Amino acid sequence: MVSIGVVGGGQLARMMIPASINLGIDLKVFAERGDSSAHPASTTVGDYKDIDQVFAFSSQVDVLTFDHEHVPLNILRSVREKGTNVHPSPEALELTQYKIAMRRKLSELDIPQPRWAVLGDNTDVEEALAVIGGFPCVAKKPSGGYDGKGVRIIDSLDDCAGWIAEGEVLLEELVPFTRELAQLSARRPNGEWSSWPVVETRQEDGVCAEVIAGLEEPDGAVSMKTLAIAKRIASGIDVVGVLAVELFETAEGEILVNELAMRPHNSGHVMTELSRTSQFEQHLRAVADLPLGATDFVAPSGVMTNVFGAVSLEGQSRAWEEFPQAKIHSYQKEARPGRKVGHVVVVGSDLDIVLDQARKARDIIQGAS
Amino acid sequence: MVSIGVVGGGQLARMMIPASINLGIDLKVFAERGDSSAHPASTTVGDYKDIDQVFAFSSQVDVLTFDHEHVPLNILRSVREKGTNVHPSPEALELTQYKIAMRRKLSELDIPQPRWAVLGDNTDVEEALAVIGGFPCVAKKPSGGYDGKGVRIIDSLDDCAGWIAEGEVLLEELVPFTRELAQLSARRPNGEWSSWPVVETRQEDGVCAEVIAGLEEPDGAVSMKTLAIAKRIASGIDVVGVLAVELFETAEGEILVNELAMRPHNSGHVMTELSRTSQFEQHLRAVADLPLGATDFVAPSGVMTNVFGAVSLEGQSRAWEEFPQAKIHSYQKEARPGRKVGHVVVVGSDLDIVLDQARKARDIIQGAS
Repeated sequence: MVSIGVVGGGQLARMMIPASINLGIDLKVFAERGDSSAHPASTTVGDYKDIDQVFAFSSQVDVLTFDHEHVPLNILRSVREKGTNVHPSPEALELTQYKIAMRRKLSELDIPQPRWAVLGDNTDVEEALAVIGGFPCVAKKPSGGYDGKGVRIIDSLDDCAGWIAEGEVLLEELVPFTRELAQLSARRPNGEWSSWPVVETRQEDGVCAEVIAGLEEPDGAVSMKTLAIAKRIASGIDVVGVLAVELFETAEGEILVNELAMRPHNSGHVMTELSRTSQFEQHLRAVADLPLGATDFVAPSGVMTNVFGAVSLEGQSRAWEEFPQAKIHSYQKEARPGRKVGHVVVVGSDLDIVLDQARKARDIIQGAS
Repeated sequence: MVSIGVVGGGQLARMMIPASINLGIDLKVFAERGDSSAHPASTTVGDYKDIDQVFAFSSQVDVLTFDHEHVPLNILRSVREKGTNVHPSPEALELTQYKIAMRRKLSELDIPQPRWAVLGDNTDVEEALAVIGGFPCVAKKPSGGYDGKGVRIIDSLDDCAGWIAEGEVLLEELVPFTRELAQLSARRPNGEWSSWPVVETRQEDGVCAEVIAGLEEPDGAVSMKTLAIAKRIASGIDVVGVLAVELFETAEGEILVNELAMRPHNSGHVMTELSRTSQFEQHLRAVADLPLGATDFVAPSGVMTNVFGAVSLEGQSRAWEEFPQAKIHSYQKEARPGRKVGHVVVVGSDLDIVLDQARKARDIIQGAS
């Protein structure tokens, strides 16, 4: 029997529970509160920044993994030294905690990415701006951003003067992308690697609104690039678990890496219904060092729409009455305007129909609350 | 938020957990031990024959449902009187607790079934034997049997003399069946009813060994009968939740009801991967009075093989290395020779290939333990 401990009690930890039950793996969660979204799992309440509390939790499990990437790296290194596997490793996680390290590593691995520069104490500002092509450009706080927070399009350095006062700022060229894509894959400690087909992600106000899977791609040129990029990154950073690579596609067909996540990711939720193996199952298999599952699709296309605000059984019922094929996931989170509280997946043979149904089901749920 | 309480901590309760998490329903389990197969759910340990303990549990939930059908009916009637929904109802469950009542009810509903008679204090034995066509015939204990226990083919009444001494015995004609089938469906309190395509079940020593779904049926004659039977029974007994109807098919094309179960059933495990809605999800939706989900298949065929004895991650790994498409469910039960401890599902387009893979995966798992 393998036991896996997940730090964080969000919806990603929650959605690992069904996979753990099917696989016969014991899943324990370390969350900031007992009524977290992952409360159906055996939960230890604690502070992930407290080394003693993380030790006490990790000593009960064979593998430590994550719902989020915020655990201090020194704690994770210590956990590993004490004999608990930590997947992904602190070295890999550093790239998600510190975006400048990610850009450096991707440059080193020769991965296509937006031009970038660092604003810091010793920066030649003119030179930095020249590297990224001047304004407008993207400014990012190196640490702590998510869902569009800590990311800003700026027309002058005045637009991010507060961040500059706090420390380093990452500047990136403003990529004139035509689509945003995400390439998900998973990797085992022994290097076994498995991918899902590339998906398109659509954001609203910097937050993922919908994900389209089963993209028409007659010549396979996009997939060839996204798969090669994901595979090179996965082995280059020796990641274990699910790796989500968020990508820009330009009108010229360039594919550039925007962000990385080393855990199940919003862009992969559609795979629970569309692929033979969900990202949650694959993540647990990867971190437990079990063979990875088949990732072929059970239908030609699928769409996921995020639900914001609130999900009620009343809303679910109304949506199901119209769309019995819609799968509605409720994260059991307290309702709050704009909060991501669930998602809808519809799969089928016609992408236009599936997209329409997934949007309408979401609208019914959101309208009912 | 709806909360559902499940009496019993076996694999059926266990497999309701993933569905409850996706739906956003709170699931609580009432089990005889804390380390039951359903231990990942919030568990109350207690005795289902103790009315006070069942009351204390059921008062915490909106709906009481079941992993098995052994709860005394008077307890369930009292629970319902105190205001907790009980699905399926005590009146429906009586038919599974007392096989003679089931036979009477099916006769009343004019459902095709084997000829039957009751051996009791006032029985005219000659007449009873004449009704069922004499020996050999099937003798059944009216209560408490499962997985072939309490069922015996007899050549004379001496073969079940012990049962006769204990009380009534149900005699049934020995049906010369060519196949055993199972027709699963689910029904809501408002009468909404949804079915899955009929499956073939194959037993070994009276225990289900494998289930075949996606049967070739060019004229649809079998399905027409099995669906009509299941629907008539479901509404006739006013069942709420999943109803499994086990059936005999004869060389003459007759379809006769063998047994009923009013809960998710071994013959429906294949639907977790093969159908858009699993029997566990559908059961929870039905008992929570939510619209039922779509039940169409994601592939033309699927096979489930039961795993007996033990499941280890070592065995799972070996099977996955050969068959990455195999879904292996471990019930986290203690190993014991002959014990049903897990199952394998493979779905695909060619039934022969799928059957071969599901059997080989099972053999690898069983061989590794």
